[in-house]
Amino acid sequence: MAGGASGGARGGTRGRTGGRRMPRAVREQQMMDAAVRTFGQRGYRAASMDEIAELAGVSKPLVYLYLHSKEELFTACIRREAQALLAAVERAVEPGLSADRQLWAGLTAFFAYAAEHPDAWSVLHRQARSHGEPFALEVAAMRDEIVAFVAVLLEAAAREAGSPGPPGERDIAGLAQALVGAAESLAAWVNESGTVSAKEAAATLMNFAWVGLGDLIKGERWSPH
Amino acid sequence: MAGGASGGARGGTRGRTGGRRMPRAVREQQMMDAAVRTFGQRGYRAASMDEIAELAGVSKPLVYLYLHSKEELFTACIRREAQALLAAVERAVEPGLSADRQLWAGLTAFFAYAAEHPDAWSVLHRQARSHGEPFALEVAAMRDEIVAFVAVLLEAAAREAGSPGPPGERDIAGLAQALVGAAESLAAWVNESGTVSAKEAAATLMNFAWVGLGDLIKGERWSPH
Repeated sequence: MAGGASGGARGGTRGRTGGRRMPRAVREQQMMDAAVRTFGQRGYRAASMDEIAELAGVSKPLVYLYLHSKEELFTACIRREAQALLAAVERAVEPGLSADRQLWAGLTAFFAYAAEHPDAWSVLHRQARSHGEPFALEVAAMRDEIVAFVAVLLEAAAREAGSPGPPGERDIAGLAQALVGAAESLAAWVNESGTVSAKEAAATLMNFAWVGLGDLIKGERWSPH
Repeated sequence: MAGGASGGARGGTRGRTGGRRMPRAVREQQMMDAAVRTFGQRGYRAASMDEIAELAGVSKPLVYLYLHSKEELFTACIRREAQALLAAVERAVEPGLSADRQLWAGLTAFFAYAAEHPDAWSVLHRQARSHGEPFALEVAAMRDEIVAFVAVLLEAAAREAGSPGPPGERDIAGLAQALVGAAESLAAWVNESGTVSAKEAAATLMNFAWVGLGDLIKGERWSPH
C-alpha cells in the first residue's frame, strides 16, 4: 500500500489485480458496502471512517487511499446506489408489456428495492438530501433520470391508446413528477412504518396512479390479471 | 431594550411607523418576514443574522433578544410558515363540497401558496429538510398534519360513495401519503421550472389523483364543472 495518502491525487493502481491481493475493485465495493450500511444507519455526520474501515475489514488508511475522503466516499455510495436502484427499475420494465403492466413492474421493483436495501434507500432519500451539496445534486440527477424514464413510459402509453386528446408533453412531465413524488413518499412511509409490505405499497400506488381516487372510493381496483 | 445598535450598518427606521415603538409581536413578525426571505433565497447556512437584521430594519442585538439564535429563528420561521400553509389549505376546503371539489379546492390552495410564497416554500421543502434536526422534525410534524387531513377527506369520500369494498384504513393512509408526496414533488418542479402555473399544476395533480393514468392516457379529464 502506498505511503502518505495526503495528496488526494488518484492512485494509478485502480483496477490492478496485483499479486495475491484482492483486486482493488473488489476492495472498493467492500468499503462501499460498509459505508452504505454505516451512513444509512447512523447518518452521514455521525458515521466515522474508523467504523467503516472496521466493518469493511480494512485499515483506515486504505479507505483514504482508495476513496480519498468521507465526502468522496459518500458521493461514491450515492452514485452506486442510485445507479443500482435505477437499473433495478429499468430491468423490471419489459418493453413488450402493456402500459399498466409496465408501470406495475416498475413500481414493484422500486418498492422491493427500497425494502430490501433500507440503508441504501436511507442514503438516497434522507442522507443525500440532508447534507447539502454536492450530495443533493447527485441524487437529484438520479431522480431526473427516473422522472424521464417514467415520462417516456407514459408518452408511449398515450400514443398507443391512440385516443383524441391524450396528455401533452407538459402534462406528461407533470404526471411523471407526481408519480415519482408519490412513490418516494410511500417508500419512506413503508420503511418507517414497518408494517406495510413492499408489495402492498406497490399495489396502493398502482391503484392510486392508474385507477385514480375517483374510482377507488367507489370500490374499483386495478388488477394485474 | 432596543438601545445599542452596535451591529454594523442598519436601516433602523425601516418599517417604523413614527416616533412610537412598535409592539414586540409586530417586530417579531417583521424579523421573521426578513428571515424567511433570507433563508429561502440564500439557504440556512449562508444566511447571516446581519443580513436578516438589516432587511428587517432592526439591530442585530434586537433580533437576538427576541429570537435568541439563528437556530431558534429558523425554527420559528418553519413553524409559522408550516401553520400558514396548513391553514391556507384547510380554509379552502369547504366541508359541504363533494369529495372531488374538496380535493380540487385543497390542491388549488396548496399550489397557490407555494407559488405565491416561494421563499416560505423553499424554507419548508428544501431548507428545513436539509439541515438536520430539530428542523426536519418541525416540518415532518406539519406534513403529518396534512397527510391526516387528506386521509380524513378520503375516508369521508369513501363513506359517502357507500359502495362495497371501499379502501380500508391502511389503504387510505397510503393513498394520503401518495397524494401528499405527489403534491410536494409537483410544487418543487413548478417553482424550479418557472414555466408552469400553480393552476396548471393543481389541474395536473387533480387529474392524476382523481381520474388516474389509465383513463388520462385515453383522453379523459376531470373537470370542475
